[in-house]
Amino acid sequence: MRPERLNALTDGVVAIVLTIMVLELKVPEEPTFEAVLAVLPLFAAYLLAFVYVAIYWNNHHHMMHAAHQVNGKVLWYNIHLLFWLSLVPFVTSWMGENHFTTWPVALYGFVLLMAGIAYYFLAHSLVSHHGKESTFAQALGGDRKGKISVVAYIIGISLSFIHPYIGFAIYVLVAALWFIPDKRFEKKAEI
Amino acid sequence: MRPERLNALTDGVVAIVLTIMVLELKVPEEPTFEAVLAVLPLFAAYLLAFVYVAIYWNNHHHMMHAAHQVNGKVLWYNIHLLFWLSLVPFVTSWMGENHFTTWPVALYGFVLLMAGIAYYFLAHSLVSHHGKESTFAQALGGDRKGKISVVAYIIGISLSFIHPYIGFAIYVLVAALWFIPDKRFEKKAEI
Amino acid sequence: MRPERLNALTDGVVAIVLTIMVLELKVPEEPTFEAVLAVLPLFAAYLLAFVYVAIYWNNHHHMMHAAHQVNGKVLWYNIHLLFWLSLVPFVTSWMGENHFTTWPVALYGFVLLMAGIAYYFLAHSLVSHHGKESTFAQALGGDRKGKISVVAYIIGISLSFIHPYIGFAIYVLVAALWFIPDKRFEKKAEI
Amino acid sequence: MRPERLNALTDGVVAIVLTIMVLELKVPEEPTFEAVLAVLPLFAAYLLAFVYVAIYWNNHHHMMHAAHQVNGKVLWYNIHLLFWLSLVPFVTSWMGENHFTTWPVALYGFVLLMAGIAYYFLAHSLVSHHGKESTFAQALGGDRKGKISVVAYIIGISLSFIHPYIGFAIYVLVAALWFIPDKRFEKKAEI
Repeated sequence: MRPERLNALTDGVVAIVLTIMVLELKVPEEPTFEAVLAVLPLFAAYLLAFVYVAIYWNNHHHMMHAAHQVNGKVLWYNIHLLFWLSLVPFVTSWMGENHFTTWPVALYGFVLLMAGIAYYFLAHSLVSHHGKESTFAQALGGDRKGKISVVAYIIGISLSFIHPYIGFAIYVLVAALWFIPDKRFEKKAEI
Repeated sequence: MRPERLNALTDGVVAIVLTIMVLELKVPEEPTFEAVLAVLPLFAAYLLAFVYVAIYWNNHHHMMHAAHQVNGKVLWYNIHLLFWLSLVPFVTSWMGENHFTTWPVALYGFVLLMAGIAYYFLAHSLVSHHGKESTFAQALGGDRKGKISVVAYIIGISLSFIHPYIGFAIYVLVAALWFIPDKRFEKKAEI
Repeated sequence: MRPERLNALTDGVVAIVLTIMVLELKVPEEPTFEAVLAVLPLFAAYLLAFVYVAIYWNNHHHMMHAAHQVNGKVLWYNIHLLFWLSLVPFVTSWMGENHFTTWPVALYGFVLLMAGIAYYFLAHSLVSHHGKESTFAQALGGDRKGKISVVAYIIGISLSFIHPYIGFAIYVLVAALWFIPDKRFEKKAEI
Repeated sequence: MRPERLNALTDGVVAIVLTIMVLELKVPEEPTFEAVLAVLPLFAAYLLAFVYVAIYWNNHHHMMHAAHQVNGKVLWYNIHLLFWLSLVPFVTSWMGENHFTTWPVALYGFVLLMAGIAYYFLAHSLVSHHGKESTFAQALGGDRKGKISVVAYIIGISLSFIHPYIGFAIYVLVAALWFIPDKRFEKKAEI
C-alpha cells in the first residue's frame, strides 16, 4: 500500500491539533492590555505545543518522503503516534491554566515522552517493512536525536518534582534540538 | 468516479472525530494527581472510542485500496457511515461523564451497532458496483467478522440492562477482535 | 489551474461542518432515557443539517468531477459557498435549542437559500470558464432543481411566519428532492 | 520534495480556522430577531476574518501553483504563517465580543501584520529555493501589494489608539486591495 492516506490522516490530525489548541485560549472578557497579559502563560504553553507538533509533522513529512510503502502494522504505529499527539491540547491547557505547577508539567512531559516513543516505534516498523539494507534504513541511521530526546524527557519529568520550571526548560531545549529539520532523509534523497 | 474525494472526506471526518473527543476531556481545575485520576473514567471511554474509530479507518483504508471506483450510491453509504462515526464523541462523553451507567452504555453500543451496519451496507454497495465475481467481492468474502460484531453489539446492549460493565466489556472484546487489521484485502492484493 | 486544492479545502470545510455540529449537541447530565429524549429536537435539526451539507458535498463532487480546471474567480465563488455552509452549525443549534420557533426556522432557511444561490453562482462561473458549448455546460443543463430549490426556500422562509413547522417541512422536502444524487454529470461521463 | 503535504496541511489548517470561528458566535438564547442583531458585531468581525483567511488561502494557492518544490526551510516558514493564521479566531472573538474597542482592534491588526510578514518570508524562502532567475521569482516580482499591506497594518494599529473604528476601516481597505486574486502567477503560467 502507498502511504497517501496515512499521510492524509496525519495531516488532518496535525492540522486540527495545531488549530484547536487556540480554542482553549479563553478569550479575555476585558478589552484591556492587562487581560492579554493574563493569557500569556497559557500562550507560552500553546506556543511550545505548536512548535512540538510542528516538529513532529516536519519529521514525519521527511520520513514518509523516503518511505515508499506501508502495511497494516505501520498504519497502527502511526495511529498510536496520533493518539499521543491528540492529547497535547489537553495537557497544554492544564499546564497553562495552572501556571506551570508540578503535576501538569510532569504530565505534559509524559505525553511528549510517549509521543517520542511512538515515533521511534513508527520509524522502526518502517525499517522492518523496507528491510535493514534499504535506503530508508540507512537514512534513518542510528536515530541518535530520538534516543537523546527520550532520555531528556525522562530527566525533565523527574526534575519537575524539584521545580516545574526546570522540567519545562528541558522540554524547550529538546524542541530547540529538533527545530533544525531532520536532514538525514533530505541528504539521502539528494544522493 | 475514482474514490479519491470519498477517501479525503472520510480522512477528514475521522481526523476530526479522533481529535475533538479530547476537547470533551474537561481540563481539571486543580493541579493535583487526584484531579487526573478523576478524569480517568472519561479517558477510558475516550480510549475505546479512539481505538474504534481507528479500526474503522484502518478497515476503510484496506477496503478502498481494493476498490477502484465509486458511484453516487456508494458516496451516500459512505456518508451514512460517517454520520454514525460523527456521533461517537457525543455518546463517549455521555458514557464517560456518567461513569458507565446503563443508558449511556446502551446508547454507546447502539451507535457502534449502527456504524457496524453502515459499514456492512457500504461494503455491499461496493460489491454490487464491482460485480459479484470481482476481485473486490472475493476479497471481502463472507464478512464473518462483520456479522459477528453486529450480533455481539446487540448482546452487549441487552446485557447493559443487567449490568453496564458487561455491555462495556463486550464492546472491548469486539474491538480486540478487529484490532488485527483486515488481512483479506492485503492478501488479495499480494496475489 | 487544476481543481485539486479547491476540492481539498471544500472536503476539509465540509468534514468539519459535518463533525462539529455534534459538539453543539450538549451532552445531557442525567444518565436517563428521558435525557436523551430532551436532546431529540436538536438532534432532528442536526440530522437535517447533516443531510443538507452531505447533499452539497455530493453535488459538488459530481460537478467538480466534470470540471477540469478552475481560475481565481471560481476559487472565490467556491469560498462564498463555503462561507454559507460554515454558518449551518450556528443556525442549526439556534433552531434546535429553541424547538423550531419562527425566527430561528426563518434564519435556517435564509442560510440554506444563500448556500443555494452560492452554488448556482459557482456552477455558472464554471460554465463561463469552460465555455457554453463545453461538455460541462451541457451536463449542467438548465439546472431546474437548483432554481426550484431557491423558490422553495423563499416560500419556506415566508411560511415560517405563519407556522415554523410549515417552513421546516418545506426544507425537508427540498432535501428529499436533492437526496437523489445529481445524475447529470454521471450520465455525461458515461457518454 | 514536492509541495503536496505542505499544501495539505495548509488546506487543513485554513479549513479549520474558517469553520471554527463560527463556533465562537455564541448561539443566542432568545428566538427573536433582536437576539440575531446582538450577534451582528461579532458577525462583522467573523466576516472580515473569513475574508482575510480566504485571501491568504487564495494567494497561497496561486503561489504554490508556481512552486515546484520545497525544502525544510520552506516548511518552517509555512508553519510560521499557519501559526499566525491559527490565532485569527482568538483575536476575532476578542474584538467582536468587545464591540471593536481599542486594544482588541490593535491586537487584531497585530496578528494580521504578523501573518503578512510571515507570508512575505514564505514567498522569499521560495524565491531563494527556486533561484532569483526562476520563473517563480519573476512571477512574484517586487511584491508591492505585500509591502503596502505591512505598512497599512502598522498605520491601522497606530490609529486604533485614536479611534478603533479607523483601525478597523484600514484593515477592511487592505482586504479590499487583496480581494482581487494575485494575478501575477496566473499571468506567468499562461506564458
